Amino acid sequence: MATYLEQLETPVPIVDLDRLAHNLDRMAAYVTLHGLHLRPHVKTHKSPRIAAEQLRMGAVGLTCATLREAEIMSEVCDDLYIAYPPVGAARLERLVRLPESVRIRVAADDAASLDALAVAARLGHRIVDVLVEVDLGMHRVGATSPEKALNVARHIERASSLRFAGLQFYPGHIRAHVDDQGPLLQQLSRDLGQYLEAFADAGLPAGTVTGGSTPAAWRMHEIRGVTEVRPGTYVYNDRTTAQIGACDWDDCALTVLATVISTSVKGQAVIDAGTKALGREPLRAEGEGFGAVLEHPDVVVSRLSEEHGILDLTKSSWRPRLGEQVRIVPNHVCIVVHLFDEIIGVRGHAVETRWPVAARGRDSNRELESMTGRPRAI
Amino acid sequence: MATYLEQLETPVPIVDLDRLAHNLDRMAAYVTLHGLHLRPHVKTHKSPRIAAEQLRMGAVGLTCATLREAEIMSEVCDDLYIAYPPVGAARLERLVRLPESVRIRVAADDAASLDALAVAARLGHRIVDVLVEVDLGMHRVGATSPEKALNVARHIERASSLRFAGLQFYPGHIRAHVDDQGPLLQQLSRDLGQYLEAFADAGLPAGTVTGGSTPAAWRMHEIRGVTEVRPGTYVYNDRTTAQIGACDWDDCALTVLATVISTSVKGQAVIDAGTKALGREPLRAEGEGFGAVLEHPDVVVSRLSEEHGILDLTKSSWRPRLGEQVRIVPNHVCIVVHLFDEIIGVRGHAVETRWPVAARGRDSNRELESMTGRPRAI
Repeated sequence: MATYLEQLETPVPIVDLDRLAHNLDRMAAYVTLHGLHLRPHVKTHKSPRIAAEQLRMGAVGLTCATLREAEIMSEVCDDLYIAYPPVGAARLERLVRLPESVRIRVAADDAASLDALAVAARLGHRIVDVLVEVDLGMHRVGATSPEKALNVARHIERASSLRFAGLQFYPGHIRAHVDDQGPLLQQLSRDLGQYLEAFADAGLPAGTVTGGSTPAAWRMHEIRGVTEVRPGTYVYNDRTTAQIGACDWDDCALTVLATVISTSVKGQAVIDAGTKALGREPLRAEGEGFGAVLEHPDVVVSRLSEEHGILDLTKSSWRPRLGEQVRIVPNHVCIVVHLFDEIIGVRGHAVETRWPVAARGRDSNRELESMTGRPRAI
Repeated sequence: MATYLEQLETPVPIVDLDRLAHNLDRMAAYVTLHGLHLRPHVKTHKSPRIAAEQLRMGAVGLTCATLREAEIMSEVCDDLYIAYPPVGAARLERLVRLPESVRIRVAADDAASLDALAVAARLGHRIVDVLVEVDLGMHRVGATSPEKALNVARHIERASSLRFAGLQFYPGHIRAHVDDQGPLLQQLSRDLGQYLEAFADAGLPAGTVTGGSTPAAWRMHEIRGVTEVRPGTYVYNDRTTAQIGACDWDDCALTVLATVISTSVKGQAVIDAGTKALGREPLRAEGEGFGAVLEHPDVVVSRLSEEHGILDLTKSSWRPRLGEQVRIVPNHVCIVVHLFDEIIGVRGHAVETRWPVAARGRDSNRELESMTGRPRAI
């Protein structure tokens, strides 16, 4: 017996399986065309099932941010890049306890963090590949000059349990419309060139040069020296990605299915998807609101409470009725996935499958029970 | 063997147990002093353990937003108010399947939603108490005039499985500094008076009149006719609550413990708590940023990525070192709790206990497996 959208309890994230397949195809074709390696970031889907499909279609490995993501993805992949500073004893311990079969790469931007990493790797009887993270305009993390980056690389080379594996950058500041990215990409290309030259001169050629998030992914082949890209969002896409032209509106595969729960206040309809279902991410492009209705993109979620979203109907003639279901394209899909434990897969209006967001959460401080002994009351 | 904060894996929400106890005491004393009923909203903590403590200290019942919250709380409480429009077949079915021992109250703002609710209640062999939700300035949900509200109440009275139980409002628009709330509260009092008069004239006296969220909680006794308050945030408090004067900075019981993972870019330190740990809630008061450092409130989280938070150090002489732990007071604590599966309870620097955020998530569409049959591949 088939199940249809109308029978689903809301709010719930649903994925159009045909769109998902198209998005996976498109990126696989792009990297093949340009001879780039694809190491997708799993932060967007946090699901081994999607990761396995990415690997089947040619991805060389996976990128993770959290140790939880790495542990879960080790079930389907033996080449994991934890693109995150390896700082903190608990994080290091968890890192070197990943299954032996997994080749581990991490990113570091500070020589001061490497001693502890080297010791952890040695105690874990493993060699850890380290990429030096450089700041190419994002101003978040990353060495800020070729000299500083080389200093980190030399520290890596001196540790017997670490191996210098290349350079990493994250062009997260490039969110302009795809057609306007030219000058930003040229600047990035020049900056990266200085690092590559300095490393070549120092006799430390960068084997892997990894960059690229979804907004700039389709033009990464224009950056000389880049060997690998790490987009995440492209599997599902979202309103921001569509608005900047990195995908079409019809490529938005994930929507939050919601129900209209009140039409009492004039000029608006209230849905049961609020901050706890949609997040409160801004649209990083022209436009307002925290999401838009799939079939009526001119209707946006203009206000949010924890469990309420306000649809502003003043610019539309569409009037949803009480109890009607609507599909919301979120501004930032990675945040939405992180809010749910499960995704529903649909084709048209038919529910076809479901899968867990297995790497959601952190599963941290697991050994605390034995450490704290018997808890007292509150 | 004791465990200390320094040993914890981050990011992780930690609660100062002494502050929590103080916050619970303070609200219990306030409602006792003014003869109000306290029906705390569980959306803030989503933990039966905290709810049980609230009930032990005199709460008359609990308020929930989601059915997941109601199901979990039914383990510790038999008087549950689902302060949410009962719209949607799946939601109704789950509502009437709550344990028989539970007295159910819901809020409704539209007569059109009541027929389905009445049928569901009858099929579930139970009587459901319904409060009429009125809009007193929030402009989210709620009947917008005494006539409309009376119309809803008369519909309730006509259904044998429903019982009119009073009025509900949510003064979520009152977030001004506590000292400036006077005019807003006076307006609210006048508006509520019109509804109460209309209901008394119609021979439908409102038994329960329930209002009040944490920002306005301490002045709810000034609103004539209010019998019950439903604050949630007061158990943990947050930066917004402190900033508007509804609590002191030292009453902020929940912080997100984070680790400094990069100091490479000048004038900032990067911590491992980003949007996926702190949310992206604005400070609903004077001030900037997405949270502030507990011991250095002048240092705010000025930018967020999914797993990175940027501490702006330009206005401070404090310079945290790589690997150092910091405690962040979030702007909006309810969103932070919703992002984690577990809370760590501490006294001073010692870890004392932990409890699950048991009502997090939605556990929805449970019967889907049997409905969809064997899933196809992606």
